[in-house]
Amino acid sequence: MASVQLQDLIATLPAGAVVTDPDVLAGYRHDWAKDPGAGTPLAVVRATATADVAATLRWAHAHGVPVVPRGAGSGLSGGATAVTGGIVLCTERMRAISVDPVTRTAVVQPGLLNAEVKRAVAEHGLWYPPDPSSFEICSIGGNAATNAGGLCCVKYGVTSDYVLGMEVVLADGTPVRLGGPRLKDSAGLSLTKLFVGSEGTLGVITELTLRLLPAQPPLSTVVASFADLDSATEAILAITAALRPAMLEFMDSVAVNAVEDELRMGLDRSAAALLVARSDAPGAFAAHEAELMVAACEKAGAIEVFSTADPEEGEAFTAARRFAIPAVERLGPLLLEDVGVPLPRLADLVSGIAGIAERNAVTVSVIAHAGDGNTHPLIVHDPADAEQTARAHRAFGEIMDLAIALGGTITGEHGVGRLKKAWLPDQVGPDVMALTRRIKDALDPTGILNPGAIL
Amino acid sequence: MASVQLQDLIATLPAGAVVTDPDVLAGYRHDWAKDPGAGTPLAVVRATATADVAATLRWAHAHGVPVVPRGAGSGLSGGATAVTGGIVLCTERMRAISVDPVTRTAVVQPGLLNAEVKRAVAEHGLWYPPDPSSFEICSIGGNAATNAGGLCCVKYGVTSDYVLGMEVVLADGTPVRLGGPRLKDSAGLSLTKLFVGSEGTLGVITELTLRLLPAQPPLSTVVASFADLDSATEAILAITAALRPAMLEFMDSVAVNAVEDELRMGLDRSAAALLVARSDAPGAFAAHEAELMVAACEKAGAIEVFSTADPEEGEAFTAARRFAIPAVERLGPLLLEDVGVPLPRLADLVSGIAGIAERNAVTVSVIAHAGDGNTHPLIVHDPADAEQTARAHRAFGEIMDLAIALGGTITGEHGVGRLKKAWLPDQVGPDVMALTRRIKDALDPTGILNPGAIL
Ligand SMILES: Cc1cc2nc3c(=O)[nH]c(=O)nc-3n(C[C@H](O)[C@H](O)[C@H](O)COP(=O)(O)OP(=O)(O)OC[C@H]3O[C@@H](n4cnc5c(N)ncnc54)[C@H](O)[C@@H]3O)c2cc1C
Ligand SMILES: Cc1cc2nc3c(=O)[nH]c(=O)nc-3n(C[C@H](O)[C@H](O)[C@H](O)COP(=O)(O)OP(=O)(O)OC[C@H]3O[C@@H](n4cnc5c(N)ncnc54)[C@H](O)[C@@H]3O)c2cc1C
Repeated sequence: MASVQLQDLIATLPAGAVVTDPDVLAGYRHDWAKDPGAGTPLAVVRATATADVAATLRWAHAHGVPVVPRGAGSGLSGGATAVTGGIVLCTERMRAISVDPVTRTAVVQPGLLNAEVKRAVAEHGLWYPPDPSSFEICSIGGNAATNAGGLCCVKYGVTSDYVLGMEVVLADGTPVRLGGPRLKDSAGLSLTKLFVGSEGTLGVITELTLRLLPAQPPLSTVVASFADLDSATEAILAITAALRPAMLEFMDSVAVNAVEDELRMGLDRSAAALLVARSDAPGAFAAHEAELMVAACEKAGAIEVFSTADPEEGEAFTAARRFAIPAVERLGPLLLEDVGVPLPRLADLVSGIAGIAERNAVTVSVIAHAGDGNTHPLIVHDPADAEQTARAHRAFGEIMDLAIALGGTITGEHGVGRLKKAWLPDQVGPDVMALTRRIKDALDPTGILNPGAIL
Repeated sequence: MASVQLQDLIATLPAGAVVTDPDVLAGYRHDWAKDPGAGTPLAVVRATATADVAATLRWAHAHGVPVVPRGAGSGLSGGATAVTGGIVLCTERMRAISVDPVTRTAVVQPGLLNAEVKRAVAEHGLWYPPDPSSFEICSIGGNAATNAGGLCCVKYGVTSDYVLGMEVVLADGTPVRLGGPRLKDSAGLSLTKLFVGSEGTLGVITELTLRLLPAQPPLSTVVASFADLDSATEAILAITAALRPAMLEFMDSVAVNAVEDELRMGLDRSAAALLVARSDAPGAFAAHEAELMVAACEKAGAIEVFSTADPEEGEAFTAARRFAIPAVERLGPLLLEDVGVPLPRLADLVSGIAGIAERNAVTVSVIAHAGDGNTHPLIVHDPADAEQTARAHRAFGEIMDLAIALGGTITGEHGVGRLKKAWLPDQVGPDVMALTRRIKDALDPTGILNPGAIL
C-alpha cells in the first residue's frame, strides 16, 4: 500500500527530504537506548521547515501512518525508536536561531543542538542554563519534548522553566503558536507547558522561544570523597540545607574507577562515593559557599576534600562526571535508569539498588544529580548472555519498583518513552493514566503520533 | 428542580457546609472585578476536605449543575463570578499546611492565603517567592488556578514555577494526584503544569506541593522619578540589560499622586513616572547592584534618585507601590487591565494607552511590573454614569487590542476569566481556541466546571 501513497509525500516535500535508502533508514531505527525491538520505518523525513512537518503530518493523518518525531536520537528511554511502517520525522535540518539580548530570549528551531544554543546565546553575554550531560549530542527540540534536566537543575530548574513559547504542529498537520517572548502570560490554558515533556505524543515542536539569563558567574568547585554512602548522603543533605549549589553531583565507586581508567585525573579509587559540588554565587560569595560545602563534607566524615576557585579546574571535574556514562559503558552495554526520590530517601534508594544488584548478580553503577534526588543507576550487561540480560532487565524493573515505593519517580528527566511505560501506571495510578489517555485522544484522535510511547 | 436534589448534597456533606441563606450567598456572587452580570448561585459549598469537593462535583456532574470554584475572591477578571443556579465551591475552610525543611517543600490546602503560606514557611527559614500585590487577601489555590504573578516574578518567576505537584478533583468528582515533592519528574505528561492557570475550568485544586527557596537576603532599594515616560522606559531597559533586579515596578503620575494623597511619604508629585527597583544579591552585591541601577536611572535622565540599603525603608516603597490599586480606586471604581508586552514595546504601550484615555475621555492610571513588561492600566469610571461607563469599557477593549497589536498579551497574570474572554481569540487565534476547546471537552465533557470562564 504505502509506496504509492509515499509518492504523494515525496512529491509534496522538498527534493531529498524523504529518505528510503535502507542503509540510511537503519541509522534512524534506534535512539541511545538501542531497543532491540525497534521497527523498520517506511521512510525518514528530514524536515527543513515547519511547512515540511505540517505536510508530513497532514499526509500521515490522512493515511493513518504512524510518525515518530526525532531530534538527535540521544534519548535514553526509547522515545524515538522507529515503528515498522511508520515515518521517522527528524528535525536535524531545522537549525535557525535568533537571539534578542533586550528581551533576553532566543527563538530557535528544534534541530539545533543544546550546545549550539548555549554557544549562540553566549555570544550575546547570555546563558541558556539547562545542561543535560548529553548537551553536545542532543537537540533543543528533544530537550523540550523530554523536559530535559541536567547538572544545573538543582539551582536553575529544568527545560520547562525556560520555554516561554513554541510553534507546534498538531497531529492533523495544523501548526499552532503558543506563548511568546513574554515572561508572564496568563492568556488561556498553559498549553506551552503541556507540550513540554510530551515526548512527541501530542505534536511536533517546530520552534521554541527560550528565556535566557545573564552569563553565569565563574564557579567555585568542591570535590569530596567518602568511605561510605551514608556519610555522602549526610553531606548532600547538609549542603542543600545550607545553600543552593549550582551543581551537586554524585558518583559511586564503579563510576569513579571507570572514569579514572579513562581520564587518569587522580580521583580517589578507594572511595565509595565522590561528590562534585559547585557554587556560582557572585564574587567572593562563591568562595564563601565553597567553604560552607567543604565544611559540610568534612563534618559528614569525608576522606578527602578538594576545593578550587579556578573555573577550568572545576570544569574538568564536571566533565569527568559527565563522562561517567560513556566510561561505565566500556564495561559493557548499559541499561540506563533515571529514578528519582525525595532527597531524604536518597540513601535508601542507593543502598536498595546495591541489594537489587547483588540479588540479580549484575553490576550496577550509580551516578546521580544528587542535589535533586535524581539518580542514574547504570546496569551493565552482556546482550550476548541471555540469562544475564534477563537478570539485568529484572533489576531494571526492581529499581523502578523501589523508587515508586520510596515516593519517587521512575524518570526524573529522560522521559517514559517505550522502555519505562510498563511502570508508569504503578507510579501514577489508573486515574492519572485515564486522564492522560483523555488528553492524548483529544489531541491525537487517530493515534499516529509516536504510538507506543508513554501510553 | 434543584431544591430536592440539593437536599442530597446537603445530606452528603458535613453539617453547615452547604449554605443557602440569601444574605450569605450575596457575598459570594462577585470577585474583586464586581461584574454586574454576576448570577445568583443555588448554594455555596464551604468544603472542609477533598472528600467534600469530590462529593460536590460527583453530585453536580450527575445533575448537570454548574460549579464555580472560588478561593478568596480577589480575582480581577471575573473568574469566580457566580452563575445563576450553580454552586459556588469555596476552599476558604481548607487551610492546613505542612512544611518540610529538608526537601524545601510545603504541602498546603488551597484555602490558605498567600501571606499565610509565606509566614508558615518563614518559620523554617524558607521563602515562597510568588507575591501578588493581593498577597494578604488571595488564596494559594486561587494563585495556582490563575498562575498568579507579582512583584518578584521578574527574577523569581510565577506560581507555576513553584508548583511541584497537586491533588485536583476532576469534573466527575475523581480526585487525582499529580507530581510530588520531586524537583525533577518526567513521568508522563506535564499535567500539573496544565492545571496551573486553568482558572477552575478543568478541575478543583484541593492540595498543592510547593517548592520553597532559602530565605531571601535583605534587599537594597532604588526609587527614581522621571519627567517623561521615555526616560523611565530607557532606565527599565538599561537596568534589565545590566542585571536581574529582584523587583522593578512602575507608577505613573496619577498613581503617584493617589498614593501620596493617602500615605504622605514624600513621593515626587510632579513626576511623570516613578520606578521602584530592588536587589537581593548577597551581601555587598546588593549595594553594588543598587549602584548600577542608580547609574542607569541617572543616565536615562531621572529627576531624582534615592537609594537605601535599609530593607524596611525599601519595604515602605514596595508597600506604596502595592497600595497603588486601592489608592487609585479612591478616585472611583476601576476597570482593571493586565496587559503585557515584550519589554522593548513598553513605551509604545504606555503612550498608546494615554492616547486611548484621551480619545475616550476617561482617566487611566498605569502601574506596572515593569521588569517583565506587565502593566495594569486602571480605568477610573463612575458606574452611575452610563455614558462614561460605556467609554470606559470601550477603552478597556482598545487597550487589549493595542497589547495584541504590539505582540503582547491581554493578561499577564490575572487570567482571562469572564471579562477578557472576548479578546482571547484575537490574541491566540482560532486554532489555539480549538485546541483549548478539545482539552476542555476531554476533561469536562458536560461543561459543569466554571462555565463561561476562558471559553
Ligand atoms: C550520555 C548521555 C547523557 C545524558 N544525560 C542527560 C541528562 O543529564 N539529562 C537529561 O535530561 N537527559 C540526558 N540524556 C538523555 C537525552 O539526551 C535527552 O533526553 C535529550 O533531551 C534528548 O534529545 P534528542 O534531541 O536526542 O531527542 P531524541 O532522542 O531524538 O527524542 C527524544 C524524545 O523526544 C521526542 N522528540 C524529539 N524531537 C521532537 C520534536 N521536535 N517535537 C516533538 N517531539 C520530539 C522523540 O519523539 C522522543 O520521544 C543523556 C543521554 C546520553 C546519551
Ligand atoms: C488589590 C489587588 C492586587 C492584585 N495584585 C495581583 C498581582 O500582583 N498579581 C496577580 O497575579 N494577581 C493580582 N491580583 C489578582 C488576584 O489576587 C489573583 O488572581 C489571585 O491569584 C486570586 O486568588 P483568589 O484566591 O482570590 O481566587 P478567586 O478570585 O477566588 O478565583 C480566581 C480564579 O481561580 C479559580 N479558583 C480559585 N480557587 C480554585 C481552586 N482551589 N481550584 C480551582 N480553581 C480555583 C476561580 O474559579 C477563578 O477562576 C490582585 C487583586 C487585587 C484585588
